[in-house]
Amino acid sequence: MRILGIDPGLRRTGFGVIDIQGATPHYVASGVIVAPTDLPLAQRLKVILDNLREVARMHEPEIAAMEKVFVNTNPTSTLLLGQARGAAMCALADAGLEVHEYTALQIKKSVVGNGHAQKEQVQKMVQYLLNLNRAPASDPADALACAICHAHFSPISQRLQAAGQLPGKTRARMRGGRILG
Amino acid sequence: MRILGIDPGLRRTGFGVIDIQGATPHYVASGVIVAPTDLPLAQRLKVILDNLREVARMHEPEIAAMEKVFVNTNPTSTLLLGQARGAAMCALADAGLEVHEYTALQIKKSVVGNGHAQKEQVQKMVQYLLNLNRAPASDPADALACAICHAHFSPISQRLQAAGQLPGKTRARMRGGRILG
Repeated sequence: MRILGIDPGLRRTGFGVIDIQGATPHYVASGVIVAPTDLPLAQRLKVILDNLREVARMHEPEIAAMEKVFVNTNPTSTLLLGQARGAAMCALADAGLEVHEYTALQIKKSVVGNGHAQKEQVQKMVQYLLNLNRAPASDPADALACAICHAHFSPISQRLQAAGQLPGKTRARMRGGRILG
Repeated sequence: MRILGIDPGLRRTGFGVIDIQGATPHYVASGVIVAPTDLPLAQRLKVILDNLREVARMHEPEIAAMEKVFVNTNPTSTLLLGQARGAAMCALADAGLEVHEYTALQIKKSVVGNGHAQKEQVQKMVQYLLNLNRAPASDPADALACAICHAHFSPISQRLQAAGQLPGKTRARMRGGRILG
Protein backbone atom coordinates (compact mmCIF):
# COMPACT_ATOMS: atom_id res chain seq x y z
CA MET A 1 0.00 0.00 0.00
CA ARG A 2 1.31 3.46 -0.94
CA ILE A 3 0.39 6.24 1.50
CA LEU A 4 0.65 10.02 0.99
CA GLY A 5 0.99 11.95 4.24
CA ILE A 6 0.27 15.69 4.39
CA ASP A 7 1.07 18.35 6.99
CA PRO A 8 -0.92 21.32 5.66
CA GLY A 9 -0.13 25.00 6.17
CA LEU A 10 -0.67 28.22 4.23
CA ARG A 11 3.08 28.97 3.99
CA ARG A 12 4.54 25.49 4.03
CA THR A 13 2.76 22.22 3.25
CA GLY A 14 4.83 19.13 3.96
CA PHE A 15 4.25 15.91 2.05
CA GLY A 16 5.68 12.42 2.37
CA VAL A 17 5.10 9.22 0.43
CA ILE A 18 5.80 5.76 1.86
CA ASP A 19 5.16 2.18 0.80
CA ILE A 20 4.04 -0.44 3.32
CA GLN A 21 5.24 -3.98 2.65
CA GLY A 22 4.12 -6.30 5.41
CA ALA A 23 4.52 -4.14 8.50
CA THR A 24 7.60 -2.29 7.23
CA PRO A 25 7.43 1.29 5.91
CA HIS A 26 9.69 2.21 2.96
CA TYR A 27 10.56 5.76 1.97
CA VAL A 28 9.43 6.87 -1.51
CA ALA A 29 9.54 10.68 -1.55
CA SER A 30 9.02 13.78 0.57
CA GLY A 31 9.20 17.53 0.32
CA VAL A 32 7.61 20.84 1.12
CA ILE A 33 5.36 23.08 -0.96
CA VAL A 34 6.16 26.74 -0.28
CA ALA A 35 3.48 29.23 -1.29
CA PRO A 36 4.93 32.78 -1.68
CA THR A 37 3.44 35.03 0.98
CA ASP A 38 3.13 38.02 -1.34
CA LEU A 39 0.68 36.29 -3.68
CA PRO A 40 -3.05 36.96 -3.24
CA LEU A 41 -4.73 34.33 -1.04
CA ALA A 42 -6.48 32.51 -3.92
CA GLN A 43 -3.15 32.16 -5.74
CA ARG A 44 -1.41 30.86 -2.60
CA LEU A 45 -4.12 28.21 -2.28
CA LYS A 46 -3.72 27.35 -5.96
CA VAL A 47 0.02 26.75 -5.41
CA ILE A 48 -0.93 24.14 -2.77
CA LEU A 49 -3.65 22.64 -5.00
CA ASP A 50 -1.48 22.39 -8.14
CA ASN A 51 1.61 21.06 -6.41
CA LEU A 52 -0.22 18.42 -4.36
CA ARG A 53 -2.06 17.31 -7.50
CA GLU A 54 1.36 16.95 -9.15
CA VAL A 55 2.68 14.94 -6.17
CA ALA A 56 -0.35 12.61 -6.40
CA ARG A 57 0.08 12.28 -10.18
CA MET A 58 3.80 11.48 -9.88
CA HIS A 59 3.70 9.01 -7.01
CA GLU A 60 0.20 7.52 -7.44
CA PRO A 61 -0.59 6.91 -3.75
CA GLU A 62 -3.58 4.70 -2.89
CA ILE A 63 -4.64 6.61 0.21
CA ALA A 64 -3.91 9.90 1.96
CA ALA A 65 -3.42 10.82 5.61
CA MET A 66 -3.49 14.36 6.94
CA GLU A 67 -2.57 15.90 10.24
CA LYS A 68 -5.58 17.39 12.02
CA VAL A 69 -4.87 21.08 12.34
CA PHE A 70 -4.23 22.47 15.78
CA VAL A 71 -7.18 24.76 16.39
CA ASN A 72 -5.45 27.99 17.23
CA THR A 73 -6.84 30.42 19.79
CA ASN A 74 -6.35 33.16 17.19
CA PRO A 75 -9.45 32.96 14.94
CA THR A 76 -7.73 34.68 11.99
CA SER A 77 -4.89 32.11 12.03
CA THR A 78 -7.42 29.29 12.33
CA LEU A 79 -9.30 30.60 9.29
CA LEU A 80 -6.09 30.88 7.22
CA LEU A 81 -5.00 27.39 8.24
CA GLY A 82 -8.49 26.08 7.44
CA GLN A 83 -8.25 27.55 3.94
CA ALA A 84 -4.86 25.88 3.34
CA ARG A 85 -6.27 22.61 4.63
CA GLY A 86 -9.29 22.97 2.32
CA ALA A 87 -6.97 23.44 -0.68
CA ALA A 88 -4.91 20.37 0.29
CA MET A 89 -8.04 18.24 0.80
CA CYS A 90 -9.39 19.36 -2.59
CA ALA A 91 -6.18 18.24 -4.30
CA LEU A 92 -6.37 14.82 -2.63
CA ALA A 93 -10.10 14.35 -3.30
CA ASP A 94 -9.51 15.52 -6.89
CA ALA A 95 -6.93 12.74 -7.24
CA GLY A 96 -9.59 10.23 -6.09
CA LEU A 97 -7.94 9.66 -2.71
CA GLU A 98 -9.75 8.94 0.53
CA VAL A 99 -8.34 11.23 3.25
CA HIS A 100 -7.81 9.94 6.79
CA GLU A 101 -7.16 12.40 9.60
CA TYR A 102 -4.98 11.98 12.65
CA THR A 103 -4.27 14.33 15.53
CA ALA A 104 -0.70 15.40 16.32
CA LEU A 105 -1.04 13.32 19.50
CA GLN A 106 -1.90 10.15 17.56
CA ILE A 107 0.92 10.76 15.08
CA LYS A 108 3.59 11.38 17.71
CA LYS A 109 2.39 8.43 19.78
CA SER A 110 2.54 6.01 16.85
CA VAL A 111 5.96 7.22 15.65
CA VAL A 112 7.82 8.16 18.84
CA GLY A 113 5.64 6.38 21.41
CA ASN A 114 5.08 9.66 23.24
CA GLY A 115 2.21 11.98 22.28
CA HIS A 116 4.10 15.01 23.54
CA ALA A 117 7.39 14.35 21.70
CA GLN A 118 9.45 17.29 20.43
CA LYS A 119 9.80 18.04 16.70
CA GLU A 120 13.41 16.81 16.71
CA GLN A 121 12.37 13.45 18.21
CA VAL A 122 9.80 13.01 15.41
CA GLN A 123 12.46 13.83 12.80
CA LYS A 124 14.93 11.36 14.34
CA MET A 125 12.36 8.55 14.60
CA VAL A 126 11.19 9.10 11.00
CA GLN A 127 14.84 8.85 9.93
CA TYR A 128 15.24 5.62 11.93
CA LEU A 129 11.95 3.98 10.84
CA LEU A 130 12.53 4.77 7.15
CA ASN A 131 16.25 3.96 7.28
CA LEU A 132 17.33 7.36 5.90
CA ASN A 133 20.86 8.78 5.76
CA ARG A 134 19.78 11.96 7.55
CA ALA A 135 16.72 13.28 9.36
CA PRO A 136 14.21 14.98 7.04
CA ALA A 137 13.33 18.66 7.61
CA SER A 138 10.47 19.38 9.99
CA ASP A 139 7.54 19.70 7.53
CA PRO A 140 8.35 16.61 5.42
CA ALA A 141 9.12 14.68 8.66
CA ASP A 142 5.66 15.52 10.03
CA ALA A 143 4.07 14.44 6.75
CA LEU A 144 6.03 11.16 6.68
CA ALA A 145 5.11 10.60 10.36
CA CYS A 146 1.46 11.09 9.40
CA ALA A 147 1.76 8.44 6.67
CA ILE A 148 3.49 6.04 9.11
CA CYS A 149 0.69 6.72 11.63
CA HIS A 150 -1.91 5.75 9.00
CA ALA A 151 -0.02 2.51 8.35
CA HIS A 152 -0.34 1.71 12.07
CA PHE A 153 -4.03 2.58 12.30
CA SER A 154 -5.33 1.32 8.95
CA PRO A 155 -5.33 -2.43 9.77
CA ILE A 156 -7.65 -1.63 12.70
CA SER A 157 -10.03 0.48 10.63
CA GLN A 158 -10.00 -2.13 7.85
CA ARG A 159 -11.02 -4.81 10.35
CA LEU A 160 -13.77 -2.53 11.72
CA GLN A 161 -15.06 -1.85 8.22
CA ALA A 162 -15.00 -5.55 7.36
CA ALA A 163 -17.02 -6.20 10.52
CA GLY A 164 -19.56 -3.52 9.49
CA GLN A 165 -18.62 -1.18 12.32
CA LEU A 166 -18.32 1.87 10.07
CA PRO A 167 -21.68 1.98 8.26
CA GLY A 168 -21.68 5.78 7.93
CA LYS A 169 -18.38 5.74 6.11
CA THR A 170 -19.40 2.86 3.86
CA ARG A 171 -22.65 4.62 2.95
CA ALA A 172 -20.76 7.84 2.20
CA ARG A 173 -18.40 5.95 -0.05
CA MET A 174 -21.27 4.54 -2.08
CA ARG A 175 -23.09 7.88 -2.32
CA GLY A 176 -20.03 9.58 -3.68
CA GLY A 177 -20.15 7.20 -6.66
CA ARG A 178 -16.38 6.87 -6.57
CA ILE A 179 -14.07 4.07 -5.48
CA LEU A 180 -12.39 5.44 -2.40
CA GLY A 181 -11.05 2.40 -0.57
CA MET B 1 -17.89 42.84 -17.18
CA ARG B 2 -19.24 39.52 -15.87
CA ILE B 3 -18.84 39.02 -12.10
CA LEU B 4 -19.23 35.79 -10.11
CA GLY B 5 -20.17 36.36 -6.47
CA ILE B 6 -19.67 33.64 -3.85
CA ASP B 7 -20.99 33.22 -0.32
CA PRO B 8 -18.99 30.20 0.88
CA GLY B 9 -20.06 27.66 3.50
CA LEU B 10 -19.40 23.98 4.18
CA ARG B 11 -23.10 23.04 3.94
CA ARG B 12 -24.36 25.66 1.52
CA THR B 13 -22.32 27.76 -0.90
CA GLY B 14 -24.32 30.47 -2.65
CA PHE B 15 -23.27 31.74 -6.07
CA GLY B 16 -24.54 34.55 -8.27
CA VAL B 17 -23.49 35.80 -11.71
CA ILE B 18 -24.21 39.33 -12.96
CA ASP B 19 -23.24 41.42 -15.96
CA ILE B 20 -22.34 45.10 -15.59
CA GLN B 21 -23.24 47.30 -18.53
CA GLY B 22 -22.40 50.92 -17.79
CA ALA B 23 -23.39 51.22 -14.14
CA THR B 24 -26.35 48.83 -14.35
CA PRO B 25 -26.17 45.26 -13.04
CA HIS B 26 -28.01 42.54 -14.99
CA TYR B 27 -28.92 39.14 -13.58
CA VAL B 28 -27.34 36.13 -15.33
CA ALA B 29 -27.64 33.17 -12.93
CA SER B 30 -27.63 32.18 -9.27
CA GLY B 31 -27.99 29.12 -7.08
CA VAL B 32 -26.71 27.20 -4.12
CA ILE B 33 -24.31 24.26 -3.91
CA VAL B 34 -25.40 21.86 -1.18
CA ALA B 35 -22.72 19.44 0.07
CA PRO B 36 -24.29 16.40 1.81
CA THR B 37 -23.36 16.48 5.50
CA ASP B 38 -22.88 12.70 5.70
CA LEU B 39 -19.99 12.66 3.21
CA PRO B 40 -16.40 12.64 4.52
CA LEU B 41 -14.93 16.15 4.74
CA ALA B 42 -12.67 15.80 1.66
CA GLN B 43 -15.68 14.71 -0.41
CA ARG B 44 -17.79 17.63 0.85
CA LEU B 45 -15.02 20.02 -0.20
CA LYS B 46 -14.83 18.28 -3.58
CA VAL B 47 -18.57 18.89 -4.10
CA ILE B 48 -17.87 22.64 -3.66
CA LEU B 49 -14.78 22.50 -5.90
CA ASP B 50 -16.43 20.57 -8.73
CA ASN B 51 -19.68 22.53 -8.74
CA LEU B 52 -18.03 25.95 -8.62
CA ARG B 53 -15.70 24.91 -11.43
CA GLU B 54 -18.79 23.95 -13.42
CA VAL B 55 -20.44 27.31 -12.65
CA ALA B 56 -17.28 29.11 -13.86
CA ARG B 57 -17.13 26.92 -16.98
CA MET B 58 -20.80 27.53 -17.83
CA HIS B 59 -20.99 31.27 -17.23
CA GLU B 60 -17.40 32.33 -17.98
CA PRO B 61 -17.11 35.20 -15.47
CA GLU B 62 -14.16 37.60 -15.81
CA ILE B 63 -13.70 38.18 -12.10
CA ALA B 64 -14.85 36.74 -8.77
CA ALA B 65 -15.94 38.35 -5.50
CA MET B 66 -16.26 36.48 -2.22
CA GLU B 67 -17.73 37.37 1.11
CA LYS B 68 -15.12 37.53 3.85
CA VAL B 69 -16.08 34.85 6.33
CA PHE B 70 -17.32 35.94 9.73
CA VAL B 71 -14.62 34.75 12.10
CA ASN B 72 -16.61 32.70 14.54
CA THR B 73 -15.76 32.60 18.24
CA ASN B 74 -15.99 28.78 17.95
CA PRO B 75 -12.57 27.68 16.58
CA THR B 76 -13.92 24.38 15.21
CA SER B 77 -16.60 26.20 13.18
CA THR B 78 -13.99 28.71 11.98
CA LEU B 79 -11.75 25.86 10.81
CA LEU B 80 -14.63 24.14 8.95
CA LEU B 81 -15.66 27.43 7.32
CA GLY B 82 -12.03 28.10 6.40
CA GLN B 83 -11.83 24.72 4.66
CA ALA B 84 -14.99 25.42 2.65
CA ARG B 85 -13.61 28.83 1.73
CA GLY B 86 -10.32 27.24 0.67
CA ALA B 87 -12.18 24.84 -1.63
CA ALA B 88 -14.20 27.69 -3.17
CA MET B 89 -11.07 29.82 -3.69
CA CYS B 90 -9.29 26.87 -5.33
CA ALA B 91 -12.14 26.45 -7.80
CA LEU B 92 -12.02 30.16 -8.71
CA ALA B 93 -8.21 30.29 -8.97
CA ASP B 94 -8.33 27.06 -11.02
CA ALA B 95 -10.66 28.85 -13.43
CA GLY B 96 -8.07 31.64 -13.76
CA LEU B 97 -10.16 34.17 -11.84
CA GLU B 98 -8.82 36.87 -9.58
CA VAL B 99 -10.74 36.79 -6.29
CA HIS B 100 -11.73 40.01 -4.53
CA GLU B 101 -12.92 39.89 -0.93
CA TYR B 102 -15.51 42.06 0.77
CA THR B 103 -16.77 42.08 4.35
CA ALA B 104 -20.47 41.57 5.08
CA LEU B 105 -20.51 45.22 6.20
CA GLN B 106 -19.18 46.44 2.82
CA ILE B 107 -21.62 44.23 0.92
CA LYS B 108 -24.70 45.31 2.90
CA LYS B 109 -23.66 48.95 2.74
CA SER B 110 -23.23 48.91 -1.03
CA VAL B 111 -26.49 47.04 -1.67
CA VAL B 112 -28.86 48.26 1.06
CA GLY B 113 -27.00 51.41 2.15
CA ASN B 114 -26.89 50.09 5.72
CA GLY B 115 -24.05 47.83 6.91
CA HIS B 116 -26.29 46.24 9.53
CA ALA B 117 -29.22 45.38 7.23
CA GLN B 118 -31.24 42.22 7.86
CA LYS B 119 -31.06 39.23 5.49
CA GLU B 120 -34.57 39.99 4.16
CA GLN B 121 -33.56 43.57 3.28
CA VAL B 122 -30.58 42.25 1.29
CA GLN B 123 -32.86 39.80 -0.56
CA LYS B 124 -35.40 42.57 -1.36
CA MET B 125 -32.73 45.00 -2.56
CA VAL B 126 -31.06 42.34 -4.74
CA GLN B 127 -34.51 41.64 -6.27
CA TYR B 128 -35.03 45.37 -6.88
CA LEU B 129 -31.53 46.11 -8.26
CA LEU B 130 -31.58 43.11 -10.62
CA ASN B 131 -35.23 43.62 -11.59
CA LEU B 132 -36.25 40.07 -10.61
CA ASN B 133 -39.83 38.71 -10.35
CA ARG B 134 -39.18 37.49 -6.81
CA ALA B 135 -36.52 37.79 -4.12
CA PRO B 136 -33.77 35.13 -4.40
CA ALA B 137 -33.21 32.73 -1.48
CA SER B 138 -30.79 33.86 1.21
CA ASP B 139 -27.53 32.20 -0.01
CA PRO B 140 -27.85 33.18 -3.70
CA ALA B 141 -29.00 36.67 -2.61
CA ASP B 142 -25.83 37.10 -0.52
CA ALA B 143 -23.70 35.90 -3.45
CA LEU B 144 -25.45 38.28 -5.90
CA ALA B 145 -25.05 41.11 -3.35
CA CYS B 146 -21.33 40.32 -3.20
CA ALA B 147 -21.07 40.56 -7.01
CA ILE B 148 -23.01 43.88 -6.97
CA CYS B 149 -20.65 45.13 -4.24
CA HIS B 150 -17.65 44.34 -6.43
CA ALA B 151 -19.24 46.28 -9.29
CA HIS B 152 -19.44 49.29 -6.95
CA PHE B 153 -15.87 48.97 -5.67
CA SER B 154 -14.00 47.86 -8.81
CA PRO B 155 -13.92 51.25 -10.59
CA ILE B 156 -12.14 52.66 -7.51
CA SER B 157 -9.58 49.84 -7.35
CA GLN B 158 -9.02 50.05 -11.12
CA ARG B 159 -8.23 53.76 -10.79
CA LEU B 160 -5.88 53.04 -7.86
CA GLN B 161 -4.10 50.35 -9.85
CA ALA B 162 -3.79 52.66 -12.87
CA ALA B 163 -2.26 55.30 -10.57
CA GLY B 164 0.27 52.76 -9.23
CA GLN B 165 -1.29 52.69 -5.76
CA LEU B 166 -1.42 48.90 -5.55
CA PRO B 167 2.17 47.84 -6.33
CA GLY B 168 1.97 44.68 -4.15
CA LYS B 169 -1.00 43.39 -6.06
CA THR B 170 0.47 44.22 -9.45
CA ARG B 171 3.71 42.47 -8.54
CA ALA B 172 1.79 39.42 -7.36
CA ARG B 173 -0.13 39.31 -10.61
CA MET B 174 3.09 39.32 -12.61
CA ARG B 175 4.76 36.68 -10.44
CA GLY B 176 1.82 34.34 -10.83
CA GLY B 177 2.51 34.29 -14.57
CA ARG B 178 -1.19 34.36 -15.28
CA ILE B 179 -3.50 37.08 -16.58
CA LEU B 180 -5.71 37.87 -13.63
CA GLY B 181 -7.12 41.31 -14.37
